[in-house]
Amino acid sequence: MMNSKTLRLRVMHGDTIAFGPGKVDLLLGIERSGSISAAARDMDMSYRRAWILVQEMNSSFAQPLVETATGGARGGGARITELAHTVIERYRRMQINAEKAVADDMAFLQSLIVVTSN
Amino acid sequence: MMNSKTLRLRVMHGDTIAFGPGKVDLLLGIERSGSISAAARDMDMSYRRAWILVQEMNSSFAQPLVETATGGARGGGARITELAHTVIERYRRMQINAEKAVADDMAFLQSLIVVTSN
Repeated sequence: MMNSKTLRLRVMHGDTIAFGPGKVDLLLGIERSGSISAAARDMDMSYRRAWILVQEMNSSFAQPLVETATGGARGGGARITELAHTVIERYRRMQINAEKAVADDMAFLQSLIVVTSN
Repeated sequence: MMNSKTLRLRVMHGDTIAFGPGKVDLLLGIERSGSISAAARDMDMSYRRAWILVQEMNSSFAQPLVETATGGARGGGARITELAHTVIERYRRMQINAEKAVADDMAFLQSLIVVTSN
């Protein structure tokens, strides 16, 4: 019943979203593909947008979450750091715990919603 | 530390947001002012936008959350229903419980964020 719209958690850095649902997905895409451009393509996101998200993360956290290999940002490959794994894990735990904490009230509120095909 | 960006809860009705942070604020504005247009003005929102949000709520829930007095939607005044009070109360409880559930992990993640003026 919970989906990515139902409960959104964000780690803020001032007005910047340091970490949130889109950034988790991007990190996992970079981990899978070893490349920011491939991860962006998989997400139907422009390379420019993916690069901005990476910069927002890297400049918000005390250490980078994504490292790019020398030889050019676009072609040289990228990997996620140990800190990225730590952040992803904690973020997922927050999501699970928050979903558990609201489950009963959300089920009650859903029971008040009309059942249609929307 | 938690703000409205950190944790967002939404009750979905298919792809429509039946209830969420903006709709809570609108209901409270209508309760305070007795009018959709006054509530919209207080929120720097167009009357048209406020009216759409009210329609989304009223058509998502089995019974209306906002009732408008006869004599014209714009001029006739509006009030929130008993169901609206129930929904607001549950929604706030979800928010509080979710914030408690993530507080420790969020504090940990915030501790990894660089301290700057952003």
